[in-house]
Amino acid sequence: MLEKTNQVNLLFDFYAPLLKGKQREYLELYYLDDLSLGEIAEMHEVSRQAVYDHIKRAEKQLFEYDEKLRLAWKHEQRMNVLNRMNELVQGLADEAAREELNTLLHQLSEMD
Amino acid sequence: MLEKTNQVNLLFDFYAPLLKGKQREYLELYYLDDLSLGEIAEMHEVSRQAVYDHIKRAEKQLFEYDEKLRLAWKHEQRMNVLNRMNELVQGLADEAAREELNTLLHQLSEMD
Repeated sequence: MLEKTNQVNLLFDFYAPLLKGKQREYLELYYLDDLSLGEIAEMHEVSRQAVYDHIKRAEKQLFEYDEKLRLAWKHEQRMNVLNRMNELVQGLADEAAREELNTLLHQLSEMD
Repeated sequence: MLEKTNQVNLLFDFYAPLLKGKQREYLELYYLDDLSLGEIAEMHEVSRQAVYDHIKRAEKQLFEYDEKLRLAWKHEQRMNVLNRMNELVQGLADEAAREELNTLLHQLSEMD
């Protein structure tokens, strides 16, 4: 369950803007805010089943988007390369180059 | 028209997997393979209007996806940073670091 939660959270970071209103909202309350199905149902005055259905559909969508675009995998690949570059840059004798490369590496990791 | 074509081609690179069958197919034939609406209609034995409608919907989808995920913009930002890093790396005296950083920069630009 924890692994599933982490996975959904990760995919949510990449694809949340593609989800439709209720799907995105309930998924966020359930996974990110850690509310129970019952709590979400009460808050929105809908049935627990309706909340469950929206969340299941949203999860399915996230996995489908990721199968098509693979943004999570690409992100991980880039992070691996950035980590190795960071090691190399820290060892550079040229201080000016080291500092600017550090800044640029930081920018790249923030963009991702 | 050329600018529109370039823009659609760029977005197609990022979001093609999200487009549905016919939309993707006709868009590809029209923009990437440079066929006319009439030629696509003849090839698929459908009306010119049907081809036109699919292409218009596909274009709209591409722009909507990009408004939500901004992958094209992120790509451009990353490329700017990578270009500056490349300049700095070429100037490094440390040959071993320079070569490995070159390889890693190349990997990053290929991933994007």
